[in-house]
Amino acid sequence: MTSGNQTWLQRSAHSVWHPCSQMKHHEALPLVPVKRGEGVWLEDFDGKRYLDGVSSWWVNLFGHNHPQIKTAIIEQLHQLEHVILAGFTHEPVIQLSERLSSLTGLGHSFYASDGASATEIALKMSFHYWRNHGQDAKNRFLSLQNGYHGETLGSLSVTDVALFKETYASLLRESVQLPSPDWRLAGPGEDARQYALRCAEQAGNYIAQHHDSIAALIVEPLVQCATGMAMYHPIYLQRLREICDRYEVHLIADEIAVGFGRTGTMFACEQANIRPDFICLSKGITGGYLPLSVVQTTDEVYAAFYDDNITRGFLHSHSYTGNALACSAALATLDIFAQQDVLNSNRRKAAYLNQQLAAWDDLPISQLRNTGMIWAFDVVDSQPGFQQRFYQAALQRGLLLRPMGNTVYFMPPYIITESEIDFMLEQTVAVLKDSI
Amino acid sequence: MTSGNQTWLQRSAHSVWHPCSQMKHHEALPLVPVKRGEGVWLEDFDGKRYLDGVSSWWVNLFGHNHPQIKTAIIEQLHQLEHVILAGFTHEPVIQLSERLSSLTGLGHSFYASDGASATEIALKMSFHYWRNHGQDAKNRFLSLQNGYHGETLGSLSVTDVALFKETYASLLRESVQLPSPDWRLAGPGEDARQYALRCAEQAGNYIAQHHDSIAALIVEPLVQCATGMAMYHPIYLQRLREICDRYEVHLIADEIAVGFGRTGTMFACEQANIRPDFICLSKGITGGYLPLSVVQTTDEVYAAFYDDNITRGFLHSHSYTGNALACSAALATLDIFAQQDVLNSNRRKAAYLNQQLAAWDDLPISQLRNTGMIWAFDVVDSQPGFQQRFYQAALQRGLLLRPMGNTVYFMPPYIITESEIDFMLEQTVAVLKDSI
Repeated sequence: MTSGNQTWLQRSAHSVWHPCSQMKHHEALPLVPVKRGEGVWLEDFDGKRYLDGVSSWWVNLFGHNHPQIKTAIIEQLHQLEHVILAGFTHEPVIQLSERLSSLTGLGHSFYASDGASATEIALKMSFHYWRNHGQDAKNRFLSLQNGYHGETLGSLSVTDVALFKETYASLLRESVQLPSPDWRLAGPGEDARQYALRCAEQAGNYIAQHHDSIAALIVEPLVQCATGMAMYHPIYLQRLREICDRYEVHLIADEIAVGFGRTGTMFACEQANIRPDFICLSKGITGGYLPLSVVQTTDEVYAAFYDDNITRGFLHSHSYTGNALACSAALATLDIFAQQDVLNSNRRKAAYLNQQLAAWDDLPISQLRNTGMIWAFDVVDSQPGFQQRFYQAALQRGLLLRPMGNTVYFMPPYIITESEIDFMLEQTVAVLKDSI
Repeated sequence: MTSGNQTWLQRSAHSVWHPCSQMKHHEALPLVPVKRGEGVWLEDFDGKRYLDGVSSWWVNLFGHNHPQIKTAIIEQLHQLEHVILAGFTHEPVIQLSERLSSLTGLGHSFYASDGASATEIALKMSFHYWRNHGQDAKNRFLSLQNGYHGETLGSLSVTDVALFKETYASLLRESVQLPSPDWRLAGPGEDARQYALRCAEQAGNYIAQHHDSIAALIVEPLVQCATGMAMYHPIYLQRLREICDRYEVHLIADEIAVGFGRTGTMFACEQANIRPDFICLSKGITGGYLPLSVVQTTDEVYAAFYDDNITRGFLHSHSYTGNALACSAALATLDIFAQQDVLNSNRRKAAYLNQQLAAWDDLPISQLRNTGMIWAFDVVDSQPGFQQRFYQAALQRGLLLRPMGNTVYFMPPYIITESEIDFMLEQTVAVLKDSI
């Protein structure tokens, strides 16, 4: 006999230390034990269903229990589950690398499993590149205010979210944060593009003065997700590319959250028509099935490590680098993109959702914003505890949303239907009216 | 039609940046493209088989293509592949946490996917624990000379392998390394236990002087794997436990490589009859199938974070934390341990292997050593290039071994048979005679 929710949530609280959580808060806010998933829906052990409006932390693209991804993993299970990737190789990792290269224009792929590890790899590679060129002084990293790149100590150093960073300040290497191009921060009379240009100018001024000591600038292209879905104009990325070229600073695009169609193009950088020196990918890469991350870089960067001398090589490793099962899930995910015209289908869904939002009125919200398959708005005059109250009220109505402060966002799986969009929006409106 | 080796290895070199590799070396040392695995064997695209004598970087416990682990993953695929673990939970992560707790005596489990991330989590948790107790000054970490704990910047700071660390020195926070209890370093007339006691005394002296600024000491229990399988006497761990208790310093056991039966007991710490404050696990945890890592800690540490104040919580996260598919592979792995009396079976296999080794003579080797299912020896008077020569010659004979410097080691999957042990040893002897 299967137990109901109550048993599982007690057992979980007793044995599992949940991520990104003050565990005591779960005394008032019960954990939800999930029995199964299907499409955009999660079902708990009491039979209640929740629409996964955050794609399970932005990883799930095509819904839970997806037949094609499942089949790909099962077929790979019967072939080869995993082999050491030092000195050895296998078909899924080769095919995945080639297909990602054809999408990004970046020639070589270095793998890990956590997104934070990808950030660490990109930072180390950039530093090591300059070192191999005799420019050891280029050892500092720039990032943006309100940026998020992970929470291992190296990635946390370039993250700028006080809640995650302040506690550990004494463990972190100093890094500099440039002004965020988040258009909500624009001055009076300034539009998103003008503000982006102003921020780019500030970035340019800083880099002009300090480029001798800067290895790389790392950014989340178009949307800074972890600090309230801050969106910005693509001109900012164009200018950064020019500045980085001029001053010989690497541009690292952290597309862990925004890659794989989330911003409307396959990769967010495409909207600025730029190619970064490094791209970090994870989350959606396996359709939300398995942990996998990758750093891709240019053939020129790769060539700087290619030498008879072993210490000029990039000797970093993780045990499960290039795991064949995770790569097979990623290949199935790319197949779905190729076969189902996902980006156009998403455009139609986004248009539908935006049309419904246009009819919203009488709600105390501001800064309604959308990039691709990400929507967010800020709640005006929200009272303390709004975040928890909203979260819980939405769950009660069968909707999983996780506000960040007073920002509510939607980041649904791409297979969401119009009626499911209606459900998501209707419940959101109802919760907003109840819980502000 | 499937291509042969040549096509795949060229495509791999062209698109995949392999871990822990100077890629140029593969011009002389071809990559091996693996088509499938079965038991201890890997098969390439030309039909050649290799005995996986390193368990694919120490992750594979029960062989490739294992029916029970496969079945568990497939069943989980039909149930739930993954769900966000913040606010949500699921059956495999709960069961795995409970079962790991019953094995280690550590009450709570915090998950990630890379081993390096586990190290980072343990370090951050330890630091944050002291901070929550008002002891912010306890912010430094100790580790051992020749230790390895991963290569993200935080974990690399406590790693002491020059080849991996020196290049990145300017990015790393300083940490102190205590003398390694590796018994090969014992003085004349000193046995392994005496030397371990001497090292423990030095550790005690250092900690007695500096404990006010030390959060934690991280060690690989019993075997320092990445620097040539340095083995040491368990009395060292007992003494460390006493010293850490006396001076209020956390003891972190990095059992990523040595856990899950590799040293002869389920966890290496058991041989010293100690319980660490934190244990880091990965590699063998999924039987070599999927990336998964976990940090377990005591209820007392957990309680120090349990508070109304969110900033006293451990807010670290990774997107794929507690992935249900990886947890299901881990549960199947624990089932195999429980059902098949693996530790006793390994003891018999180890006895057989040691018996065969006892007959070795006329070989220029020294420091032959064994702990559980790990064997190593050092080659005397090896010539420059020995490592590569040995590796390649062994591959030609159908054996995957990866010497570290002049150290050759065996770390086979536990399902290796006596005839496969014979094959591994016979080929090793032949290669040694050829390639020194």
